[in-house]
Amino acid sequence: MNTNNTLVSILMGSDSDLPTMKEAAAICDEFNINYEMKVISAHRTPHLLSEYITEAEKKGVKVIIAGAGGAAHLPGVAAAYTILPVIGIPIKTSTLNGVDSLYSIVQMPPGIPVATVAIGGGKNAGILAMEILALGNEELSNKMRDFKKKIANESIKKNEGLIERLKD
Amino acid sequence: MNTNNTLVSILMGSDSDLPTMKEAAAICDEFNINYEMKVISAHRTPHLLSEYITEAEKKGVKVIIAGAGGAAHLPGVAAAYTILPVIGIPIKTSTLNGVDSLYSIVQMPPGIPVATVAIGGGKNAGILAMEILALGNEELSNKMRDFKKKIANESIKKNEGLIERLKD
Amino acid sequence: MNTNNTLVSILMGSDSDLPTMKEAAAICDEFNINYEMKVISAHRTPHLLSEYITEAEKKGVKVIIAGAGGAAHLPGVAAAYTILPVIGIPIKTSTLNGVDSLYSIVQMPPGIPVATVAIGGGKNAGILAMEILALGNEELSNKMRDFKKKIANESIKKNEGLIERLKD
Amino acid sequence: MNTNNTLVSILMGSDSDLPTMKEAAAICDEFNINYEMKVISAHRTPHLLSEYITEAEKKGVKVIIAGAGGAAHLPGVAAAYTILPVIGIPIKTSTLNGVDSLYSIVQMPPGIPVATVAIGGGKNAGILAMEILALGNEELSNKMRDFKKKIANESIKKNEGLIERLKD
Amino acid sequence: MNTNNTLVSILMGSDSDLPTMKEAAAICDEFNINYEMKVISAHRTPHLLSEYITEAEKKGVKVIIAGAGGAAHLPGVAAAYTILPVIGIPIKTSTLNGVDSLYSIVQMPPGIPVATVAIGGGKNAGILAMEILALGNEELSNKMRDFKKKIANESIKKNEGLIERLKD
Amino acid sequence: MNTNNTLVSILMGSDSDLPTMKEAAAICDEFNINYEMKVISAHRTPHLLSEYITEAEKKGVKVIIAGAGGAAHLPGVAAAYTILPVIGIPIKTSTLNGVDSLYSIVQMPPGIPVATVAIGGGKNAGILAMEILALGNEELSNKMRDFKKKIANESIKKNEGLIERLKD
Amino acid sequence: MNTNNTLVSILMGSDSDLPTMKEAAAICDEFNINYEMKVISAHRTPHLLSEYITEAEKKGVKVIIAGAGGAAHLPGVAAAYTILPVIGIPIKTSTLNGVDSLYSIVQMPPGIPVATVAIGGGKNAGILAMEILALGNEELSNKMRDFKKKIANESIKKNEGLIERLKD
Amino acid sequence: MNTNNTLVSILMGSDSDLPTMKEAAAICDEFNINYEMKVISAHRTPHLLSEYITEAEKKGVKVIIAGAGGAAHLPGVAAAYTILPVIGIPIKTSTLNGVDSLYSIVQMPPGIPVATVAIGGGKNAGILAMEILALGNEELSNKMRDFKKKIANESIKKNEGLIERLKD
Repeated sequence: MNTNNTLVSILMGSDSDLPTMKEAAAICDEFNINYEMKVISAHRTPHLLSEYITEAEKKGVKVIIAGAGGAAHLPGVAAAYTILPVIGIPIKTSTLNGVDSLYSIVQMPPGIPVATVAIGGGKNAGILAMEILALGNEELSNKMRDFKKKIANESIKKNEGLIERLKD
Repeated sequence: MNTNNTLVSILMGSDSDLPTMKEAAAICDEFNINYEMKVISAHRTPHLLSEYITEAEKKGVKVIIAGAGGAAHLPGVAAAYTILPVIGIPIKTSTLNGVDSLYSIVQMPPGIPVATVAIGGGKNAGILAMEILALGNEELSNKMRDFKKKIANESIKKNEGLIERLKD
Repeated sequence: MNTNNTLVSILMGSDSDLPTMKEAAAICDEFNINYEMKVISAHRTPHLLSEYITEAEKKGVKVIIAGAGGAAHLPGVAAAYTILPVIGIPIKTSTLNGVDSLYSIVQMPPGIPVATVAIGGGKNAGILAMEILALGNEELSNKMRDFKKKIANESIKKNEGLIERLKD
Repeated sequence: MNTNNTLVSILMGSDSDLPTMKEAAAICDEFNINYEMKVISAHRTPHLLSEYITEAEKKGVKVIIAGAGGAAHLPGVAAAYTILPVIGIPIKTSTLNGVDSLYSIVQMPPGIPVATVAIGGGKNAGILAMEILALGNEELSNKMRDFKKKIANESIKKNEGLIERLKD
Repeated sequence: MNTNNTLVSILMGSDSDLPTMKEAAAICDEFNINYEMKVISAHRTPHLLSEYITEAEKKGVKVIIAGAGGAAHLPGVAAAYTILPVIGIPIKTSTLNGVDSLYSIVQMPPGIPVATVAIGGGKNAGILAMEILALGNEELSNKMRDFKKKIANESIKKNEGLIERLKD
Repeated sequence: MNTNNTLVSILMGSDSDLPTMKEAAAICDEFNINYEMKVISAHRTPHLLSEYITEAEKKGVKVIIAGAGGAAHLPGVAAAYTILPVIGIPIKTSTLNGVDSLYSIVQMPPGIPVATVAIGGGKNAGILAMEILALGNEELSNKMRDFKKKIANESIKKNEGLIERLKD
Repeated sequence: MNTNNTLVSILMGSDSDLPTMKEAAAICDEFNINYEMKVISAHRTPHLLSEYITEAEKKGVKVIIAGAGGAAHLPGVAAAYTILPVIGIPIKTSTLNGVDSLYSIVQMPPGIPVATVAIGGGKNAGILAMEILALGNEELSNKMRDFKKKIANESIKKNEGLIERLKD
Repeated sequence: MNTNNTLVSILMGSDSDLPTMKEAAAICDEFNINYEMKVISAHRTPHLLSEYITEAEKKGVKVIIAGAGGAAHLPGVAAAYTILPVIGIPIKTSTLNGVDSLYSIVQMPPGIPVATVAIGGGKNAGILAMEILALGNEELSNKMRDFKKKIANESIKKNEGLIERLKD
């Protein structure tokens, strides 16, 4: 696996999804994995989506991360055009808080899975992508082990000064 | 409008949706409107779907009725490929009873509407299609007025013997 | 179809629904379709509603767009009085976020459909109305095709500067 | 108050609601209060509904009990035509179990209340009607006190043999 | 019925419910009906509640309006101690928006109804109480008819300047 | 702690709750802890409930287990009358599957907790009671440790023949 | 029971849960019961969690209070490692308002109960812990009785000036 | 990647989850990928779970599929002990239909993702695992392409005789 290639494609239905999606990108940056990021709508530009997915697979993308809100079809339609694993991020919505996005992404019919993370789970989508890429890659595996230790240590450090904060 | 043409296209994601979709077909039959009916999956055969929708519009279809369950993308993806009105039927599901289907169909983003009817609402999808087709068609309008009178009368007739049934 | 006529009627249960409903009106304006807009309550002025709907149909209105919130009866009761297609907009509510409005509008019984759009979906209600009116109208069809191209282009343009915004 | 008059009107949107509505009727029978029962649809026969409600009020009906399922508009539309108290029964539905009916009935806008009972709560609708009629009626009040004692005793009696039933 | 008596009792589980409950009081004031208002908790002061309800019934209260939030037991427990009609108001909660309150109030078991109004429906609780009191009271009936006309007129007046507000 | 005393009181709102409640009783039997079981309704026999709880506390009951469905007030009202820990079991309901029961039991206001277990969680209510009683009781603690080992072993044993069952 | 020991352990999945958890600590302070408080994550530091729970039980902790949000596994996993009663607090979440936390905590499988309190119910978790500790402790029982009187009195005092506040 | 190794581990919280989990196993069989299957409970045998996961990773397992119902902690706790991708299957439950399982699995906190599939989505969990394994494996990629063609063809074939079935 040539890590100079773009290995991850980060797609979103609308640029209003960027605050969530950039957390996935930040993880790729942290693990030094190249990604490309695109606004591409399953509803407004459906032909572009099918072309893009086909291209991405050909040029070596390994994992697709797609976020969408409401009737969130982007991850599922992306999955329809590829055999690559597709990670879906349900974007929080202003009316149904993302339950609509969650159901639209996770309840895929038999044959076409979408690996769904939490509502607004941009960071976890990135981590899941890294876990998948790490399977055939010792260096990335080691980084992932370090990452897990880091978040464990951050969790432990949160105990410092906890009692003092009871008085706040 | 030549009523010998196929004016309505009835699509479903899976043939297990047929019991709901045939109610839409039955309404077309009752109003003597030609339709075609297809199993076509937004996830398993996405290219077929885009081709089919483009063809349908060209050959004179006026209204598309699409039913799907779970992460129900068929109506929304169909709508992405056409300027025809698309009527979406959320199919009842065994786990979430069709709330997943409903949210996946009704919560479409600005720009690409799907005219959503009730969960399992095959009959109403058919009637809505007829109401749309009746707009430029006096004969069909009259049939629709008769249809509404018929269901009003059926409703009134349900009062016969009602009191007797209290003893059941 | 004489496009000088009022072809669309936009109804709302309360003037607090105006921010959503004006999006439907804006679409009519964009497509140069005449509409009239009314606050008319299924609960406070039921007789006015039945009179209004009957009148509207007579004077050439083709599509009714009705928005309401909570126990949202306006679209369904409007549909009871006409054979015109009725498009229902579930208004977001402060307690149940519009799930109450959605269920009250979309779950219509067999015989009387309401074409339901997303919670707060004023814009899509307008677009759906245009799609219906465009069925017998080449000019409007062309405008709709242009409109779809426009929103596709807007979607594509959102990619400009996307990577830069990752640093925000 | 002349108890020979019809004091309660029991309405349902469809005769499929009868199993729930007859429980309300049974309570009227138990308290010896005259009622009439009608299938009358807010959607299929809207004009009949407004006429019926106006008539009912004139001829001395004091309480209206209305049951409906799905987009359950009957109780709310009935309430729109009268100053009588309207008791709404959300009928259990096959898809949403009556949550749709509940929201469509209970979430009435300010100005037009519906006194909502439990999903499928035909019996309680009847009891609530009796409590209302009992306000100006000593005989009925006494019956209601006896009724409450009866159900208290029934509740207490359920303890007989309870321990034995642990072995079932 | 001596309208100098306290005819309505307005109870709330906590004084934080006051903003909702005062809308019920305002309706009583508007109809010139005496009421008393109390904070009384089914959980913190259960004995007081049973005493209060028994007293209230004895001294001539005709309708009890009770509001509570969360595991909202106040209306149901009040109903357990009286044969008076009890109107329940589900108070909006910060976590579940009042769905918890609604279910805790409306889903009463057979035998003990609570007449439930909308989440936060203080005004409608007051109006429903007035409708009940108006049953044996011509003067109050006339006021209610006037009230309904007033809200109808207010609804109609909201059309003034509606089109102008489209530009906002 | 004299284990000949009745240490657990198992209450249910209706004898239809018995299938769930007997699972709690079976755990008491398994741990050799005396209990008493009663049908006692917060709505039908409210005075009995307050008397019973006061008595139970006096005669040495240590834990109260209360199950109820729908607007499930029994556990919360029991908790209002005692300083003993009250364990609430939301009974599954035919309409809302026990979500109503769950919300009515778990969402108690500050001051009066109910220790809520899963919908239909009779067995876990019993185990939780045993864990509480075991706090000051070495023998019971040891039994609980054995019980946990037993269920661990049962879980492990379920692996026997698992692969064979793949062919079923 | 030596009340100089740490009798309560208050755990949280993240320090962002502190505002809820400190309410539990405040109750321990009010009842003069020693507790320790820790951020410990079932997901980021799972080994620490199992060690901590085993240690806590050995050194005399009697009740564990654990709060977590989202896929809230902390209370259930804590319960897996101990025979002590575990009280779970579902933390309110920004997307699902804590329904996710509630379901993840309360719906424990048979064998491993978690005593669940309301979403955000830090105070009630503390009170429930005190009720459990009070079982074998007369002094604590008396404090709990005083506490209940205090909150009863606070509830009663809220009636002062209530009518005046109607004018606000 | 030596395909003689066990590459997939299929875990379930209880053997009652087998009907769902065997669909994942069937996909592994269809793709000729070795797997092992275990009942292992995050709550009844927590130490076994941590040991097992650590072992599995060491001996070359690449993907973990874990199914659980209710407060479904198995997938999330498994993920806590490994850097391998974990696929979670929410098992349908008798009370909440699997919404509890879904929320307990998908709503994982930042740092520890679970790749969640549909409620009851055993088949898709298997396919997702194959997609992940296929990333570094041309043979498996080709099988996946064939698999997708196969399900596309099956979908197309469902059109045969569709019209005839309208008469059923």
